[in-house]
Amino acid sequence: MFNIDVLFEAVRDRGHVCVGLDTAPGYIPPSERKKASSDAVAALAFNRALIDATLDTAACYKVQIAYYEALGLAGLETYAKTLGYIRDRGALVIADIKRGDIADTALQYAKAHFEGDFEADFVTLSPYMGMDSIEPWLSYAEKKGKGAFVLMRTSNKGMKDFEYLELKEEAAAPRRLYDAVGEKLSALVEKYSGDSGYGAFGAVIGAEAKTEAECAEAAAIRERYRNLFFLIPGYGAQGGAARDAALFLREGNGGVVNASRSILKAWTRAAGGIPPENAGNAFAAQAARAAAVEMRDAIRAAAGSSGV
Amino acid sequence: MFNIDVLFEAVRDRGHVCVGLDTAPGYIPPSERKKASSDAVAALAFNRALIDATLDTAACYKVQIAYYEALGLAGLETYAKTLGYIRDRGALVIADIKRGDIADTALQYAKAHFEGDFEADFVTLSPYMGMDSIEPWLSYAEKKGKGAFVLMRTSNKGMKDFEYLELKEEAAAPRRLYDAVGEKLSALVEKYSGDSGYGAFGAVIGAEAKTEAECAEAAAIRERYRNLFFLIPGYGAQGGAARDAALFLREGNGGVVNASRSILKAWTRAAGGIPPENAGNAFAAQAARAAAVEMRDAIRAAAGSSGV
Repeated sequence: MFNIDVLFEAVRDRGHVCVGLDTAPGYIPPSERKKASSDAVAALAFNRALIDATLDTAACYKVQIAYYEALGLAGLETYAKTLGYIRDRGALVIADIKRGDIADTALQYAKAHFEGDFEADFVTLSPYMGMDSIEPWLSYAEKKGKGAFVLMRTSNKGMKDFEYLELKEEAAAPRRLYDAVGEKLSALVEKYSGDSGYGAFGAVIGAEAKTEAECAEAAAIRERYRNLFFLIPGYGAQGGAARDAALFLREGNGGVVNASRSILKAWTRAAGGIPPENAGNAFAAQAARAAAVEMRDAIRAAAGSSGV
Repeated sequence: MFNIDVLFEAVRDRGHVCVGLDTAPGYIPPSERKKASSDAVAALAFNRALIDATLDTAACYKVQIAYYEALGLAGLETYAKTLGYIRDRGALVIADIKRGDIADTALQYAKAHFEGDFEADFVTLSPYMGMDSIEPWLSYAEKKGKGAFVLMRTSNKGMKDFEYLELKEEAAAPRRLYDAVGEKLSALVEKYSGDSGYGAFGAVIGAEAKTEAECAEAAAIRERYRNLFFLIPGYGAQGGAARDAALFLREGNGGVVNASRSILKAWTRAAGGIPPENAGNAFAAQAARAAAVEMRDAIRAAAGSSGV
């Protein structure tokens, strides 16, 4: 049994929300930040409160390491403790690290993020250097059920620069770089197929699908890579909505949808836009929970009505 | 003045060697490893000895963060102290981190690696997500002269998977993905051109050029991207040689050539393959120095004889 199967069951039981803990110090209630001995300490207390409040609502958590690296060694201690806290509570955590390097280095990274201080259940990977930068990580799928999400088609403006480039080919349909990544990944994980029908490693697929062409593309992506579970970022702050995200699901599963700022900063919008002056982590956690519940229900409704 | 200009001068004065401190515990003399309280502590002492011994021979240092992450929080403390030690000695250090993420996250990463505990002079970046994952880092070129090397054409086997894919285009000559990266990068750094004539950000270009076609390709890459300074990995352990690397230089400059294992593990080959049983860091440092000097002279000779 792979972690991807556990995630599949979590989505079935608790919905599609992946709570993104991109905890910038500015997202923490000022009263808590003032009270703490450092921003790194404040971030850990904030994260713990939000995790406690969303455990029954979130399919999983995603921790973006950049926000912790920016606080130096103390920040990485908070990063490690946040991962540990999530795993101790029996929940799944994705380390959003987007690594991609030659095979020897990939093995060192895999050791770093699938064992020891920074152990996570999943990582994110970048495919630019090729499949020998992905394959070494699979030894941990075999050994410990670990999973990964490989960047395929993201939702930032720059995705057009390279991911969308059309490749020169014999094939009738124009194929883009992201398809080349998807096809190689889909083939690679055939041998690592979980009970859920999805491969141990999936793909990062951006949520935005506004125009008719984008919706058709979303449907095509979902149909073409049937064995890839999707990590879908871009909900809320990045512009993606429940309907967009639902297009990337299959039979109501097959993906988790990440939201970071819209959940972390929900407390700033709570109580009619005027949070109590001394709003603390408890207030922030309840606002986060409400935002996660609302998001979960919206995606479930959209997934149901899309009829796939 | 950008760090790239300082690096240009270092190459002119001290040659092309970039000492790669990919310090796996297994590369440290056993006597030193036994003596130390942890592998992380042993790695720091080893690094310091090698840095001291190569300061007048190396153009710069490159520290691959994966080897330190694999040792957890203690490893990252050694990583931070290694960077600090190099910078305190007045030398330049490249943080080999290959980051690549959306703009907000890129700014967090830039803060992490261009300020505070993990401050480096250069970083390496991965372009998959597009130019908006590169551009935010340039604010630190303006503010502090910082530099970066963006993955373009690497020397691992997997480079053929995506970097080498031919793009569908009007242009007569087939253009590969790595060219699309190189052209966008070259255009981006036009506005950030240093006194040396190179842009503040350069590219990672693998060293191997064995066949006639590969040599022609190397010459074409050097000619086409005249404003990109190259970080050239793959010397020694990865198969690249002095002649291969020299093909990517222009008028004897414009690139640094990284070697990691061949320098770090030089002590295991020293004294006719039988290092003294109690060989310590001093022995390892002298062997590393000798390997770096030999490499420097070989590249200088090859660069001179290639006549460019």
